[in-house]
Amino acid sequence: MVKAGILGGGQLGRMLLQEAANLPVETYVMELDADCPAAHLCHHFVEGNTRNYDEVLAFGRQVEVITIEIESVNVDALETLEQEGKKVVPAPSVMRIIQNKIRQKQFYRENGIPSPDFVVTHSLQDLHNHKHLLPAVHKIGEGGYDGRGVQILESEEHLHLGFDAPALLETKVDIFREISLIVAVGSGGEMVLYPPVEMVFDPYLNLLDYQLCPADISPQVMWKVEAIGVKLAKALGSAGIFAIEMLIDNDGDVWVNETAPRVHNSGHHTIEAHITSQYEMLWRIMLGYPLGSTALLQSSALINLIGAPGHSGDAAYIGIEKLLAMENVYVHVYGKSQTKPGRKMGHITILGSDRLTLLLKGKQVKEQISVQAKP
Amino acid sequence: MVKAGILGGGQLGRMLLQEAANLPVETYVMELDADCPAAHLCHHFVEGNTRNYDEVLAFGRQVEVITIEIESVNVDALETLEQEGKKVVPAPSVMRIIQNKIRQKQFYRENGIPSPDFVVTHSLQDLHNHKHLLPAVHKIGEGGYDGRGVQILESEEHLHLGFDAPALLETKVDIFREISLIVAVGSGGEMVLYPPVEMVFDPYLNLLDYQLCPADISPQVMWKVEAIGVKLAKALGSAGIFAIEMLIDNDGDVWVNETAPRVHNSGHHTIEAHITSQYEMLWRIMLGYPLGSTALLQSSALINLIGAPGHSGDAAYIGIEKLLAMENVYVHVYGKSQTKPGRKMGHITILGSDRLTLLLKGKQVKEQISVQAKP
Repeated sequence: MVKAGILGGGQLGRMLLQEAANLPVETYVMELDADCPAAHLCHHFVEGNTRNYDEVLAFGRQVEVITIEIESVNVDALETLEQEGKKVVPAPSVMRIIQNKIRQKQFYRENGIPSPDFVVTHSLQDLHNHKHLLPAVHKIGEGGYDGRGVQILESEEHLHLGFDAPALLETKVDIFREISLIVAVGSGGEMVLYPPVEMVFDPYLNLLDYQLCPADISPQVMWKVEAIGVKLAKALGSAGIFAIEMLIDNDGDVWVNETAPRVHNSGHHTIEAHITSQYEMLWRIMLGYPLGSTALLQSSALINLIGAPGHSGDAAYIGIEKLLAMENVYVHVYGKSQTKPGRKMGHITILGSDRLTLLLKGKQVKEQISVQAKP
Repeated sequence: MVKAGILGGGQLGRMLLQEAANLPVETYVMELDADCPAAHLCHHFVEGNTRNYDEVLAFGRQVEVITIEIESVNVDALETLEQEGKKVVPAPSVMRIIQNKIRQKQFYRENGIPSPDFVVTHSLQDLHNHKHLLPAVHKIGEGGYDGRGVQILESEEHLHLGFDAPALLETKVDIFREISLIVAVGSGGEMVLYPPVEMVFDPYLNLLDYQLCPADISPQVMWKVEAIGVKLAKALGSAGIFAIEMLIDNDGDVWVNETAPRVHNSGHHTIEAHITSQYEMLWRIMLGYPLGSTALLQSSALINLIGAPGHSGDAAYIGIEKLLAMENVYVHVYGKSQTKPGRKMGHITILGSDRLTLLLKGKQVKEQISVQAKP
C-alpha cells in the first residue's frame, strides 16, 4: 500500500479518509487537535503543528505522497520534501502563490487571468492614500480565513475598518452570480472540470450557506468560466484539485475571486451527485491513477450545517431524524464534539431534478435541523 | 455522540465505519487481528476475542448499542448485555437461532418458512442410516463459513465426505436461480425490502463471484420471494439487517437456503446503486432513526475481488488503474495487507442500465484485475 500523508485533520480530511478506504493506501494525518474530525479515520495520527518546518518535514519523510486539507501549512518544509523526491500535491510553488492573497492577485495579473483590479496597501496609513478608489473590498494578505480578513469599505467612514498590514484594495464587482469551478489536474497535466456550482443567497427563503449544481449561467458565460479555469490551472502548472471562486457581473463578465488548491466546501455535493467525488479524484491524482469522470448524476443542492447562534458546548443535532426521513437527502455530520455559533458542523446534500424543487427542499431542510449545545 | 460497538473488524465493519463518519456516532471495534480492515477506521479499537464471554461483556459495557459483522460471537455475553439494558442489533435470540444451522432449519419448519426438507444426522455413522435420501446436501451444524462445512453427497460413494458431527442432510434443490433478499427491520418493527440480487454462475463468461441487481425473476416469483422475506423477518422478531439467501427451482418454487442477520456481501452494491446503502441502513436502525429508501438508482453488477490462485503474500492489485479508467466502475479494496488464494480482497460495483451490458462489462473487469502477491 502507498503511504500518503494529509496536513490538517478537519472535515475535508475526514471525507478524504472515508474515500481512501476504497483504495490500497496507508493514511497519515497531522493536526494539532487530537480530537479533530479526521483523527480516528487514518492509519497513523500525528499530533503536530502543520506550520512548523521540522514537524512537517519529519511527518512528510514517513510517506511517499503528501497533500493538504488546509492552507496554513509550512511550505518551506514541503519544498524540501519535494526536493527529496516526495510527491507533493499541489506543488509547494502553487501553495506559496495562493497562501498570500497579494501574490495570488499578482499571479492572476501576470498570467492574464481576469480578476478585479487592485492596489496593494501596506498599512492603514497607506490605505488612506487610496480612498478615491472606494467603494472597494479590503483583503488582508495573509492569515484571512473563512470570511475573516475581508472587509467591504463602502465609503471614507469605513476606512478605519481596514487592515493595518499588507493587504489588497480591490474593485467591488456588482455580482450577478457567484460560482465555484473545480478543476482536477493529473500528474501528466491531464485535466477534467466539474460542472460549476452556484452560491445562492436568497433573502426571501433565508438561504445562506447554500449552493446549487449546476449553476444557472448562460452558455456564453459557461464558455468563459471554463476557459478561465483551464487557463488558470495550466498557469499554476501543478497536479491537484483547484476550486476557483468566480464572480459574474451584470454584463456577463467573469472575474476570478480566489482559488483554493485543495478539495473544497463547494465540492461536497460531488460525493452523491457526480460519478467521481472530488475526494476520490484527489486520491486518483495522488496515487497516479487515471482521472475519473466528473459527469453529473443528478442536480444537487448543498446546505452547510452551521452551529446555531447563541449555542456553545457539546453538539446536539436537533431534528436530524426528520432529515433522515426525507428522500434524496444525504446527511454528513463532521463529528466535532463542540459546537459554537457559525462553526461548520456538517452538510446536507439534496438530489433532485429541477432548481425549484431543490430550493424548496433546501428551505424545508433548513427549517428542520439546528445544531445546538446540549442543555 | 452515541457510543456504538461492532464485533468483528473485517470488510463489513470497514464499510460500516466509512458510513458511520456521516453520523453523530462514536465507534468501537473488537477483533483479534489488530491489522484487520476496520481497525484504523474506528474511534476505539479493542484487540480481543469476539467468542470470549468476558471480553465481549467488557467491550459491550463501554457502549450504548452493539452489532455484529461476523456470526461467530459470544451470544451469552450479548444476552447479558441485553438484560443490562444495552441495545443489541440483531437480538441475541436471533443470533442463537442462526448460529446453528440445525436450529435455523427447525425455526423455518416451525414457522412455515419454505426451506429444503431435511433430517438431522448426529454422526457419520448416523448419516449412513439416511443414505436412501441421496443425492442430498450435508451441512455441518456449527462452524461452517464461506462454503466450508457444506458437502454435496451425490451417491453412496460420497458418504465418507460427510461430517462426523451434528449436521443437516438436506434435499438438493434443482436450482433455476439463486438470489439474496435483504430486509431491514427498524426497532419499532417497521420494515423495508431491497430489490433481490441474483447470483450469476456463467461458465461461458467464467463469471463466478458475480451478482446482478435486480434479479431476473418473474412477478409471480417476486411475490413469493417478498412474502417469504416479510414472513421470516416477522418471525425473527428483531431489528436489524437480514440477508436471506433463497433458491428458486424450475417450477418457480422458492426455498430459503439460509439467513445472515447482518450486513452482507450480497448488499455491497447498495453503496452506489441504491438511495440508502445497507451500511447506512444499519446505522439508522442502531441509532433509532427512520429507515431509508431502498429504491434502486441504477441496475448494478457486483464482482468479488478474490486472491488469485497460487499467490500468497503482500497484496498487489494488478490492473487496478485499468478499472479506474472505466466509467461507472467503482473499486473497493479492503486494505488487507496479505493476499491468499480465494481470500476476499475487495469488490467492484458496476452501474448500468441493462443486463447484457453489465454482464459484458463484468467480463472485462474480471479480465483486467488480479490480486497477486508481490514478487
